[in-house]
Parts: sequence; C-alpha cells; structure tokens
Amino acid sequence: MRIEHDSLGELAVPKDALYGIHTLRARENFPLESIKNDPELCKNFLLVKEAAAIANMKAGAWEDKRIPTAIISSCDYLYHNFSYYHQEFDLPALQGGAGTSTNMNINEIIANKALQELGLPLGDYQYISPNDDVNKSQSTNDTYPTAGHLTMIKFTRTVMDELSKVILTLQGLATKYQDVLKMGRTQLEDAVPTTFGRSFKAYASILSRDMDRLAAVCQELMTIPLGGTAIGTGVTGSRSYMDTVVDELATLTKLPLKQCDDLVDGIQNNDCYVSLSNAYRSLAVDLSKMSNDLRLLNSGPQDGLSEINLPKRQAGSSIMPGKVNPVIPEFCTQVAYQVMGHATTVAMAAEAGQLELNAFEPVAFYDLFEDARLLRKALHTLDKNCLQGITINIERCITMVEHSAETATALSPVLGYERTTEIIKESLRTGKSIRTLVKDEISQEKLDELLSPASFFVK
Amino acid sequence: MRIEHDSLGELAVPKDALYGIHTLRARENFPLESIKNDPELCKNFLLVKEAAAIANMKAGAWEDKRIPTAIISSCDYLYHNFSYYHQEFDLPALQGGAGTSTNMNINEIIANKALQELGLPLGDYQYISPNDDVNKSQSTNDTYPTAGHLTMIKFTRTVMDELSKVILTLQGLATKYQDVLKMGRTQLEDAVPTTFGRSFKAYASILSRDMDRLAAVCQELMTIPLGGTAIGTGVTGSRSYMDTVVDELATLTKLPLKQCDDLVDGIQNNDCYVSLSNAYRSLAVDLSKMSNDLRLLNSGPQDGLSEINLPKRQAGSSIMPGKVNPVIPEFCTQVAYQVMGHATTVAMAAEAGQLELNAFEPVAFYDLFEDARLLRKALHTLDKNCLQGITINIERCITMVEHSAETATALSPVLGYERTTEIIKESLRTGKSIRTLVKDEISQEKLDELLSPASFFVK
Amino acid sequence: MRIEHDSLGELAVPKDALYGIHTLRARENFPLESIKNDPELCKNFLLVKEAAAIANMKAGAWEDKRIPTAIISSCDYLYHNFSYYHQEFDLPALQGGAGTSTNMNINEIIANKALQELGLPLGDYQYISPNDDVNKSQSTNDTYPTAGHLTMIKFTRTVMDELSKVILTLQGLATKYQDVLKMGRTQLEDAVPTTFGRSFKAYASILSRDMDRLAAVCQELMTIPLGGTAIGTGVTGSRSYMDTVVDELATLTKLPLKQCDDLVDGIQNNDCYVSLSNAYRSLAVDLSKMSNDLRLLNSGPQDGLSEINLPKRQAGSSIMPGKVNPVIPEFCTQVAYQVMGHATTVAMAAEAGQLELNAFEPVAFYDLFEDARLLRKALHTLDKNCLQGITINIERCITMVEHSAETATALSPVLGYERTTEIIKESLRTGKSIRTLVKDEISQEKLDELLSPASFFVK
Amino acid sequence: MRIEHDSLGELAVPKDALYGIHTLRARENFPLESIKNDPELCKNFLLVKEAAAIANMKAGAWEDKRIPTAIISSCDYLYHNFSYYHQEFDLPALQGGAGTSTNMNINEIIANKALQELGLPLGDYQYISPNDDVNKSQSTNDTYPTAGHLTMIKFTRTVMDELSKVILTLQGLATKYQDVLKMGRTQLEDAVPTTFGRSFKAYASILSRDMDRLAAVCQELMTIPLGGTAIGTGVTGSRSYMDTVVDELATLTKLPLKQCDDLVDGIQNNDCYVSLSNAYRSLAVDLSKMSNDLRLLNSGPQDGLSEINLPKRQAGSSIMPGKVNPVIPEFCTQVAYQVMGHATTVAMAAEAGQLELNAFEPVAFYDLFEDARLLRKALHTLDKNCLQGITINIERCITMVEHSAETATALSPVLGYERTTEIIKESLRTGKSIRTLVKDEISQEKLDELLSPASFFVK
Repeated sequence: MRIEHDSLGELAVPKDALYGIHTLRARENFPLESIKNDPELCKNFLLVKEAAAIANMKAGAWEDKRIPTAIISSCDYLYHNFSYYHQEFDLPALQGGAGTSTNMNINEIIANKALQELGLPLGDYQYISPNDDVNKSQSTNDTYPTAGHLTMIKFTRTVMDELSKVILTLQGLATKYQDVLKMGRTQLEDAVPTTFGRSFKAYASILSRDMDRLAAVCQELMTIPLGGTAIGTGVTGSRSYMDTVVDELATLTKLPLKQCDDLVDGIQNNDCYVSLSNAYRSLAVDLSKMSNDLRLLNSGPQDGLSEINLPKRQAGSSIMPGKVNPVIPEFCTQVAYQVMGHATTVAMAAEAGQLELNAFEPVAFYDLFEDARLLRKALHTLDKNCLQGITINIERCITMVEHSAETATALSPVLGYERTTEIIKESLRTGKSIRTLVKDEISQEKLDELLSPASFFVK
Repeated sequence: MRIEHDSLGELAVPKDALYGIHTLRARENFPLESIKNDPELCKNFLLVKEAAAIANMKAGAWEDKRIPTAIISSCDYLYHNFSYYHQEFDLPALQGGAGTSTNMNINEIIANKALQELGLPLGDYQYISPNDDVNKSQSTNDTYPTAGHLTMIKFTRTVMDELSKVILTLQGLATKYQDVLKMGRTQLEDAVPTTFGRSFKAYASILSRDMDRLAAVCQELMTIPLGGTAIGTGVTGSRSYMDTVVDELATLTKLPLKQCDDLVDGIQNNDCYVSLSNAYRSLAVDLSKMSNDLRLLNSGPQDGLSEINLPKRQAGSSIMPGKVNPVIPEFCTQVAYQVMGHATTVAMAAEAGQLELNAFEPVAFYDLFEDARLLRKALHTLDKNCLQGITINIERCITMVEHSAETATALSPVLGYERTTEIIKESLRTGKSIRTLVKDEISQEKLDELLSPASFFVK
Repeated sequence: MRIEHDSLGELAVPKDALYGIHTLRARENFPLESIKNDPELCKNFLLVKEAAAIANMKAGAWEDKRIPTAIISSCDYLYHNFSYYHQEFDLPALQGGAGTSTNMNINEIIANKALQELGLPLGDYQYISPNDDVNKSQSTNDTYPTAGHLTMIKFTRTVMDELSKVILTLQGLATKYQDVLKMGRTQLEDAVPTTFGRSFKAYASILSRDMDRLAAVCQELMTIPLGGTAIGTGVTGSRSYMDTVVDELATLTKLPLKQCDDLVDGIQNNDCYVSLSNAYRSLAVDLSKMSNDLRLLNSGPQDGLSEINLPKRQAGSSIMPGKVNPVIPEFCTQVAYQVMGHATTVAMAAEAGQLELNAFEPVAFYDLFEDARLLRKALHTLDKNCLQGITINIERCITMVEHSAETATALSPVLGYERTTEIIKESLRTGKSIRTLVKDEISQEKLDELLSPASFFVK
Repeated sequence: MRIEHDSLGELAVPKDALYGIHTLRARENFPLESIKNDPELCKNFLLVKEAAAIANMKAGAWEDKRIPTAIISSCDYLYHNFSYYHQEFDLPALQGGAGTSTNMNINEIIANKALQELGLPLGDYQYISPNDDVNKSQSTNDTYPTAGHLTMIKFTRTVMDELSKVILTLQGLATKYQDVLKMGRTQLEDAVPTTFGRSFKAYASILSRDMDRLAAVCQELMTIPLGGTAIGTGVTGSRSYMDTVVDELATLTKLPLKQCDDLVDGIQNNDCYVSLSNAYRSLAVDLSKMSNDLRLLNSGPQDGLSEINLPKRQAGSSIMPGKVNPVIPEFCTQVAYQVMGHATTVAMAAEAGQLELNAFEPVAFYDLFEDARLLRKALHTLDKNCLQGITINIERCITMVEHSAETATALSPVLGYERTTEIIKESLRTGKSIRTLVKDEISQEKLDELLSPASFFVK
C-alpha cells in the first residue's frame, strides 16, 4: 500500500493502483455495486484530458515539456488499452459532487500513468499532479459535461445506425406487401381497407422523423463548455488555452465541436440533456406503438387477429405446449417504458440545478447512456429477430376485407351517410353482403368501381 | 369603490365586494382564467374558520363577544349560501404563497360579512379584522392544509361511492356469466380456457383493493395540523385554543379528525398528498387496464375478437356509417393518463418543499381535486353507460374454446410437454382437432375428463 | 324541443339549438363540467370546415351551389361571432371517440346555421346534412388533428411572444448589472466570483434556445393530414379536393401549411404532439430552474442570501406581519410542474395509440392547450410582476465576494492546488484574509493582478 | 457441446452447462449486457421450485421418488452454493415473455443438476424434464410473480433496516439539539424561531410514516398466486398440490405467505407492484426533501446559511481548493429522482397489461429491485457518512434568531397585525431592534414574556 493524502487526511491506496485517494473516497461515499461509470464516458474523458494537455502545452503552460508529453502519451495509451485498465476506472455512476469524483479518478490515473512512464514512483504528485498538471486550466464543471457530450453523441450515433436498419427493413416490407389488402381499424373497430404497404410505410415514416430528431440533438451536443473551467469564468486558464482547446478536441475526436458562446450558461444549464432525453422518449413512444401493433396483428394463432406472423423466437410457455409469444415486441415495449421513466428523472435532475452548477448531472448521464444502450439493443433485436422474418396471412386478410360491412363507406358519397348506415346495420344483422343489399340502388358497374381498392386509395 | 390598504399600499375594491385587497393582488399576480379555486375547498375553509372562531371564543380570546358571534354566523351563512356568493371566492387555484391568497380571500369575505351583519361598513377592519380576528390563532400554514384535507376526504369518498357501484356491477356480471367459457389469453396469444365469471370477478377483486387503498388514505388524512399556526409552533395561539380547535372542527364536519402529534412535521411535509396521489394512480392504472381489456374483447364487429358487446353509446364516425366505437373505456383511459401525469406533478411538488413549509401545495391540491372529479365521472359513466349494458357473444366464445389447440395443455400431465407440443403443432398445421389426433393415445373417457372445464378450474 | 335521430335512436334537442343529437350524446357520455373544449380549437375547426367546403365546391361536389355557399358563410359568421355562440360548442374536452364528438358538434352547428341562413327549419338535414355536406370528403381522423395543429401553432406563438419579452428583460438586466460582482456558487457552496451580468445573460441564453425549440415545433406542426379522410385513405374524397384543401386552409389561416406526404402516417401517429410536449417541458424545466434561483438569491431578508430583491407583490403571510414571499417564482415553478406532469400524460397517450388511429388524442390536446395557457400566463406575470422590478443589493454582494476565501482559487496556478488549499483552510479557520496569508509568497502587485476580476473573466 | 432441442429446433449447448436451450434463446433474443437478472430473484425462484417439488411429491405426483428427491436436493444445493453457479443464471433482466425465460432457465439448471446427482448425463430430459418434472403443476404465470414477491419482501426489509437506522440517528439529533434555537423559514423567507430539535424530529416523523408504508406493502406482498398455474386456473396441477404448495413455501422461507383468494386476479394484475413503487416513491420524495434541506442549511461556508456542518467527505473540487461539497445529500437526491422515474415506468407497465397476463412484469421487477438497492445504499451512506457527523453552528443560529425582525410576530396578538407590520418594516429599514421600537407600547416584562421561546413553542 502507499499512503496518499488530500485536504481531509490520509488513506492507504493499493501499491500498484493508478487511481488514488479521491477514487477511494468516492467508492466509500457512494457504495453502489450495480451502477458503474460507463467505459465510454471514461474513454472520452481521456480524450478531453489529452486535448487540454495539448492546448496547455501549446500555450506554454509548462516549462518542463516532459510533463505534458507524458500526460498526452498516457491519455493516448490508456484510451487504446482501456479494457486492460478498466478496473482502475471502477467508480459508481451515481455520485454527489457533480462528477468531481469521476474527473479526479481520471486525473489520478493519468498522473500515475505519466509518472510511471517517466520512471517515477506512483503517487509522487510533486512531479506530476492530478490537479495542477492533469487538470490544468480545467474544472469538473467544464470537463465532465464535455466528456458527457462526446459519449452522448457517440452513443446516439449507434442508436441511429440500428434505427436506420429498422427503417430499411420496414421500407422493404412496405414494398414487398405494397398492394396486399388488409382491414384498417380505428379504435380497434373495423374501419376501411388499407394495405400492408401503407402500414409498414407509416412505421418507416415516423421512425424517419425520430432519426431527424436524434440528428438534431447530436448537432446541439456538438457545442461544449470546455474552456469555461469553474462556472464558466475561465479562471486558472489562459486566454490562449481557452481559444484553442476545443479545436484540439475536435481534431482528436474528428467531431465538429464548437465552444459555447456563453460559457456560464453552458456550464450551469442542462437543457441539452433534456433535449436528448426528449428525442429518446419520442423514439421510445414510437417504437412501443409499433411493437404493440405487431403484437395485435400477430395475436392468435386461432382466437386473435392473426393477420401477420412474427418469427417464432422461443417456446412461449413453460406449461402451455406449442405456445409462442411475441417476445421481441414485448421486449421493445419494456425498453420504451424504461426510457420514458428515465425522461422523468432527467427532467427532474435538470430542474433541480441551482445557481452556477447542476449537481445532479451524474444521474442524467447514467440514464441517457442506459437509454442509448437499451434502444440500440431493442432496435437491433427487433430488426434481426422480428421484422426481417415477418410473414403475412394474405388470404385471411383479403377475406376479412371482403366480408367487412364497413367497406360500404365508399358508397356513402352516392347513398348518403344515413342510408349507408342502414345498409351496414342490416348487413351485420343478417350476414348478407353489402353487394346483395344495394344491388337495387346501385348498378353493378358502379358498385365495382366504388368497392374497388381505388376508392380507398385516392392518392 | 372603497379604498383598502395592506403593507404594500392601497387599492380600490368594488364598493359591495366582500373580498378585499389581498384578493385583488392575487388575481393580478396569478392571472389564470382557466384554473380556479375549488368551491369545496372554499367551503371547507369556512368550516375551519368557524371552528377556529368557536375555539378562540371558548378560550376567551375576545372581550367583545359580538365579534366571534358575527364571525361564526357569517361562516355558517356563507357555507350554506355558497353558490350565491361564489364570485367572491373567485381566485386562481395555482398561486404562489402556499395558499396565503386563498386564506386571506376567505378571511376578507368572512370579516366583511360579519361587519355587514353588525351593520358596520364593509372594509372597516378596525372593528373586525381579517387578520387579527378571523385569522386569530391561525396561519395559512395550518389552515390551508386542513381545508385541503377535508376536501380530499370528501372528494375521495365520492370516488369511493362510484367505485363501489362499479364493483357491484362487476360482481353481478361475474355471477351472471359465471360458467360461460371463453378463451384465456396471455400476451395476446391463445392460452387456456377460462370463464367470464372469472374475468369479471378478477376486475372486481382488483378494484376492491383500490377501495381499501382509498379508505386507508382517507384515514391518514384525518390527521390535521390545525393549531400549529406558523410552522407548527402555535405562535399567537393559546394553549387552550390549540387543545380544542380540532375537536370543534370534528364536531362541525362530523369527521373523526385528529391533531398531528408532531405539528412541525404536519405542516412542512406533504407526504399525505403523495399518498393520496398514489392511491388515485393505482386506481387509474387498474381502471385503464380493465378499460383496455373491454375494448379488446369488444373489437370487431367482424374483424376483431368480438367476444363481448359494449352498449352502443354514440355514432362512432363522422365518415364511416354504422361504426360504433368503445368511447366510454376510451374516456376512462384518458382520465387514467391524466391522473398518472398528475402523480408526477404531485410528487415533484412534494419533493421541492423546503425547510419549514412547502410552497407548492396549491398545485398538489389542484391536481388531487381534479383527479377526484375525473375519476368520479369516469367511474360513473363506465358503470352506467358501459358495464351495466355489456352482453356476451356466448356461442362465439364457446366455439373459440372448442376449436383451440391450446386446450391440449390439459393433456400435458399425461402425455408430457414435448409430445403435447407436437400434437398442438400438428393440429394448428392440419386443422385436425386435438381429440382426433390423440385418440390412439388416450381413451375416450379419459379425454372427456381431461378436456372438461373441470381440468381448467381446479379450485 | 325538436326530435333528432342517429343510428342509435332519437333524442329531443332544444328547439333553437344549433347543436344536435351527437352533441347531446357526448355530453351524457363524458359528464365533465370542469374540462371543456377550448374555444380556439372550435374556431380553428370552423376554418377547417370552411376550407373543406371551398375545396369541395371548387371540385364540383354539389350541384346546388346554395349549399356550399351557405356552409361557407356560416363558418365565417360563427368564427367572427364565436363568443355569442359559445354555449353551442359546450362539450367536454376529454372524450372517447378520438374527437368524433367535437367534429360532429361542429358539423351540426354549421349545418343548422346554414339551414337558418337559407330559411329552412333547424334539424332539416335532408337539405343540408352534417355528415354528407358539412363533413363532405372529411373524417374526424383528418380534421380533428388539423384543427388541433392550428390551435397548437397559434397558442405556441402566444407563448413565444411572452417568452421574447422575458428574454428582453433579462438581457436588459444583464446589461444594467454587467459588472456587478457576486459570489458564484456550485452545489450551493461558495465557488468563485462572477457578475450579475453573466447570471442574467445565462438565463437569457437558455430561454433563447427554448424559443428556438418552440419555433422548430411550430414548423413541424405546419404539416397536416387534411385530405386523408378515414385513416389516410382519402376515401369519399375526390382527387381534386385532396389536392387543394390544404392550400385553401393555408389561405384562410395565412399559415404556410403543407399536406403530409404520408397521410396514413400523419393520421395514426401522434409524435408531433410529443414533440410539442417536449418543447414545453424543456421550457418548463428552464423556467423553474431560473425561478428557483431567484428565490434563493432573494432569500432573507435577514437570514438568507439576500443578494437581490424581488418586487414585493403581496403581503406574504396571514400571521407573520411584514413577511413578503417570492410568490411569482413560486407560481412559475408550479406551472412548470404541471407542464412536466402533462408531458407524462401526452407521452402515454401517444404510446397507447393502436393501428390506424390514436383514440387518445383529446387528452393530449387538452394538456397541450392548457400548457400553453399556463406557460403564457406564467411568463407574463414573471416579466411584468417580477423580473422588471428586480433590484440588487450591490454592496452586500461585493462584501461577500471580498471576504470569500474561495477567491484564492485564482492563486492556484501560482501556488499549486495543495498549498492554496492550506491557505483557504487557514483563512476559514482563523478569519484572516487571503491577502494577509499569502503576502510572503506573492508580491503585492502580482496579488492585485491575480485577485482582480480579470482573473475570473478570462473571456 | 451437447445438442438440445425445443419446439423451434436444435441448438448446441456447452457440454457442461447446467442451463439449456431456452436460456440460449433468451440470451440471443434480449441482448443486454448491462441489465441482468438479480441473483436474489434466482435464489428465491429456487425456493419456489423446491416448495413445488415437495408439494407435488406429497401429492403423489411421481411414482419414482428419486426424481423429486433429486430436484429438491438440487434446489437446496444451488440455493446454498449460488455464487459458485451464478454464471448459469446469467440472463437479461428485461425480457419478453413475462418471465418465461427466467423460469425455464431455472427449470433447466435444476433438471440438469438433478440429473447430475443421479449420475445421468446432462440434457437427458427423458428422465428428469425441465417442464414435466421441475415445472410440474406450475406456470411462469404463478412462479415468476411468486419469486418476485419474495425478492421484493426481502429487499424491502433491507431498506427498512437502513431506514430505521436513519430514523434513530435523527431522533438522537433531535434530542441532542432539542432546545437549540434556529430561524424557521417558510418559502425561504425568515419566519419565526424554531429549534433544531423540532427540525430533526420532523424528519424522523415523516420517515417513520414511510417505514409504516413499507411494512404495509410487505404485508400485501405476502399474498401470492402460487398454485394458479396458467392464468390462475390451476390447470395441470392437482387440488392437493394447490392446497399445500404455499404452506410449503412459507415453511421454507419462514414468511407468513398466503395464497390469493382470487388466483385469476392474482396472476393478471400487477397492482401490488404499483403499491411497492408508490411506497418507494414516497420514501424517495421525503429522502430528497430532507437532503435538500441539509444542503441549504449547510450552504456556505461564508456566503450561505451555514447553520449546520455536514461532515466533510471528499475534496469538493478539482479546481477550487478547499471547497467541500454536500456530496452525500446530492447522492441521495439523485437516487430519489431515479426511483421517481422508475415509478412512471412501473405504472406504465402495470397499465399496459392485457387480459389474463401482464407481459411487462420483468421491467417492473427490474426497477423495483434496483430501487431497493439504491434506497438501501443511499440511506446507509446518509446515516453513516452524513447524519451521524452533523454539527451545528449554534452561536450563529442564535444570533440570527435574535436579530430577526420576524420574531415580532409574537407581539401581534397584543399590537395587532397592522401595527406589528409597521414595526417590522421599520426595523428592517432602520436596523433598530424590535425591542427598541416597541418599548413605549409594551412593558419590559410583557416583552420578555412575548419574545421568549415559550411563545413560539405553545405545545
């Protein structure tokens, strides 16, 4: 063990640990085993630290160039060998302190790695200090949200990748079943005929708007408060550092990042997290709506709608032999409910921020990262294990349309709403077909025209 | 107009108005036309004021007995003639100040009514003061929640009245259709047979638990902080007043009210509102679940499950003749969503309370009163306009059960899960009945026994 | 009374009523007194009907031109004399049937008004039918959301008007107090100095983004499904009608409206309501955050932060003389919580939509309209009754900054984090000033430079 | 590898795996790495399976007694050596199928362990079948909620243990600081004096009610649907089994379990999960309210209220030396927001249940288990790392009270509200003490009496 100290006292740190005393305190203060810092957040934090070191070095912040050089190469090394070192970064994701523990954990690991590189003993912070060197010109206030933005952008892009596959599959289904008739239903009651082409296209349409929403939020997240240091003042930083650090990070990440015009605002306000949560929530709502529809259309096999067949993915019941359940859409809906619940949490966290900093960023980060993971996986399994294998009971669907009294809606412009109502009621009561019932009122030719699909697909 | 003043200055009040300057300020500060103080809240506030005046009088708080006598009789008069005076009480329900505006509005009206009774000019607060007399030994801190509790108890009881009717109707349906077979479904897929008796009984069972939850919260709400005055200290009140005022109110309201043991806690904490919101939320969830089921079972008439028929309540469509929609359950579900959204609001308001008082009580009150109104009306129309008229398509339901391959589940203890699975798959593929497929494996007699309803209703 | 009938039977309608049997049924089915259709929704519905009649007329839908002429002029007349007729439109806002009751109420009123204009008896629907004429080529499916969009756009614009005033006032405060120093706080703990200029500017910055979000949603809402009739099929409409009706409505409303490319999607999906709810929710979160800050900074007057003075708006307490409370920000926060709760409701309603139509639109409409009203009023009173009158206790704020040990943060780049920590701890323990404690380590000149405001305002 | 098959086909299972093909399918269908089945759920499931085997054995369900004997001893062995086998139980917690995957995973593991015990090859389900033997007389429908209830009861009890410690500490603080005066604040504004004793007691009072709520829900959860098999019918089970299995489980768990009177209701309805979520939500709200208060009272050290000192737990800032933040209460509030968000999810999941089964139980389970973990940890660290070390700045608090003009409230019964208001305003304007200002109106003796603490603590 080695002894480290901070402003509160001393603690023994495992001899070979790259992390230090601040990490230890956080683990004791926030004793969660189940909720850990996301590796991606840590990796992005390493990039932030690297960019800051580069900008500081260029601004002439160190006389001894070996210090920034070691810091920069350590960041790079840890980034590329992250999984080997992941235990060092083991920290509860929910934490008081607005992310200070995470920032200090990263600072400590980098400082020690740099010390190691220079052949100096771990914990010898006189030479390379987690605060004065690794954290130079920085605050948790600006670096934590910056690392958060990067992670959110990257995670959201993975969601978009899966979403684009789902949209493609839906568009394929729309083309494949373009003209296959089915009964349309409003409020679960028989309405007028539509086609599977239209149904699948509608799902593709709504999800495309979700794609746009995700892209818009990614754009919003490109604006970062790095350089603001404490509460957006820039205190302890130099003007030169402040002007270049975001460009350095943009170079490292290959993202079109931009510094906030108003750094004070950028640090104290969490509205961009609410925006991201809103976009995820919209996607979740739409994903679940579609999943619910798929379950309804697949219901049966004998005593339900049974219009479509979702691919069988697992035996449905431990007790009822032969039963197969729509497990993939059920999974998607649960993911959606989780994301919708998180939206409540993220909004509450944003609202509760006080004065120059929001102390509740960690829970917003955790939920948003989790949302991305959940949505990505849900979209993936939905596409691969469900949508791609959907088949249609075409004959059954056509029969349903042909027998439906509500197709008489198309006669309404000719017969009027009231007379058509009488005919439909008679058809439902007697079981006689609409054609039979109106044959004295409308010519065969006109009837063919009115009841043809063209009537239902004006455009 | 008459001129009134308060600590901020003067305002002109309509000459004959019973309300005064504080009411005017509130109307200007919180300019909501759509959201008004509930009449019931105001009426219950009058009872609180009356009880306080009685307790103060008995405690010898006034030398001149005409003052309390006039206050008491004014409270009583206004209570019994409330609708005539309702314009006086016109105040936005959402208000800053934790209800002070409401309390002062009531104080002003009572003071002026009492002045009127004594033949004194309105606004002559030297003789009877809204603060020193009507509000004697009281604070908004203790009277506003007390009036709130009373209103919540009364409103909740009206919900319970309607709920008990719904439960009775469901129990009636359960008895009436006790043995009518229907297909049970899990995850929307055909499962094993059940009966409508069981289905309706299950709805009655869950709603009975909601009844218990409402009753429990009413009990919780009987404990009130009246007597606590400012922040539960009792400051400005006398010990004698404090010891008797709750009993006076219990007498007036005929409710078994009880003073909080810990008045400081009783005033600063809003957990009982969260409890009420929780109970409403539970009821809303269950109400909507049942409503959704009813819509599913009613779906059709031709291309849905069509097991039950909800009473037709209105033409369903402006364009599709003869269409009838399940509008009552749809109404209930919307009410449920509103109540569930309010639960988020009420919890946020409770959480945001700071130190010795929660400034956000008015929004919690408003939402809880609205919840009660919505739930009461939803339950009422559900019972009268939907449940009471439900009919069953018995024949169709029996046919569905008889043709269902999943009834073979009952053979599983004999044939094993795997063999039974094969049989069900074959039945679904070939359309052959289960009986036909197993006739070589199980005797006719045994089959009759296994496939009889008794197998599915062990208890 | 006159007798009207629909597919369910007959009802007596008041002799002179413009509304008819469908309105009566709705009032009985959804017995809410407290929650009524918004007049703006009804007025916008009249515009939709007028546009449809014009488009139908131009498409040659009537041989007898007097019918469309009467319908069009009735729509126009009712629109401009709405308040006179508002009782006719009295309908519960929460309703089953996805808005069919609202649509039929409008159809009935217009039909009867048109009949009246032509000198025909009310209820004589043979000549002008609510369904066949007023509702020609339309469905509730497409007209109800269209009227909803129009209302949301107009309401949102009123919110934006008030929001822009708030932003202007904040920018004025930022300029006025640009260089007034104050202590910055993170996590409620003393951090480093900032200025009121920066604080007010940050509020203006975040609210400007909310303005952008509202504008973006308004843009999204310009796309409407009018012409889709039942489930987006266009059934009963003509191609010519379908191609022109949106342009007619754009002309009437002077809004750049656009028909959905995918009408099936436009009718079944409610994501644009979730988008609007998201934008309102974002604004609510930010409004409440700022309100909470104002309350904190105003706390006191003696035992709080007391940095700013909110204008006194009303006597704060019925019992504590001289107390003044921050009632306007408290009002704003309650409005925010209500809007945030509604966001849960709107998302649930959108998620619960099934197949070709969402039956739960009415509750989403109601909540979104209410959100707009609440936000508009909250912003209005916040600007007029609070922000415009804010004053600063400048001297107190400067003293706080000067005495604060945390200003030593600016020495950290020179002394290092650890040594600076020691100095701050000593200052807090002994009460000695930072300057005194470091006078041997840093020259007077350097100290002046480091502790000057310039250190804290790098950019 | 060994080959296993199910109704969908074959898959290769690792040779030595105790789990089987159903487990494999679930892992592929629900590809979540981050969200796993809780070990406690699995362990409780083992107890359910053991109880079922015992009840079946006693009911004479097997001729060959070696089968139940092996199953029972396997359950027992796996339960007591769970951590060694935990990889076998590795399954995503969010899953479609209403828990069928979890049930089958448990069934497979037990079957194979039992086979192993009997010296038979793994996967030789002819002899001991996961479905026919381990799952005998059971369904996921009844066993999954039963295992869930057990886990919720046990988890809730651990929350209650930590909560009771927090309450004890608060009561200790209340006693210790019983008579220490402090300024009370309503709406963040100075109100009247109170004591720390009262403040801490109020926190203890509200948390004691939360304790009662948790206990009540535990009681509710003791009622379980075990024996209901598929949808509460009892199909495949025997009457004898059904009558005894809950008692067997009660014996194994030492919990006073009770079988649902209405098994159909018990299986389809999830209201008890909403009840638990409600109780957690109430606790979360109250926990956060108290945490927020602690942060406010601790704010400073120089420019805040600074009435209390929370123990310093970690260096507060990476950039601002000497800063210490209230990280433990911040942690608690984040936990509260997470729990409050989960409440939205759990209610949505419960509402979405359809007909005879709720397919969304897994997400409710996951959130409720997570809530318990979070609350337990938050309460633990709050007690140990925060409450136990709180100190009071007594002198400062007394000074604040003594200088406060609002103490004049106690003079109001003598001077009247209006005159007292004038005095307070004059005191605030001139800085003169209340005593000075009223010395001509009230005798010294009377003043001493009125301004003594006794005036503020009537009871």
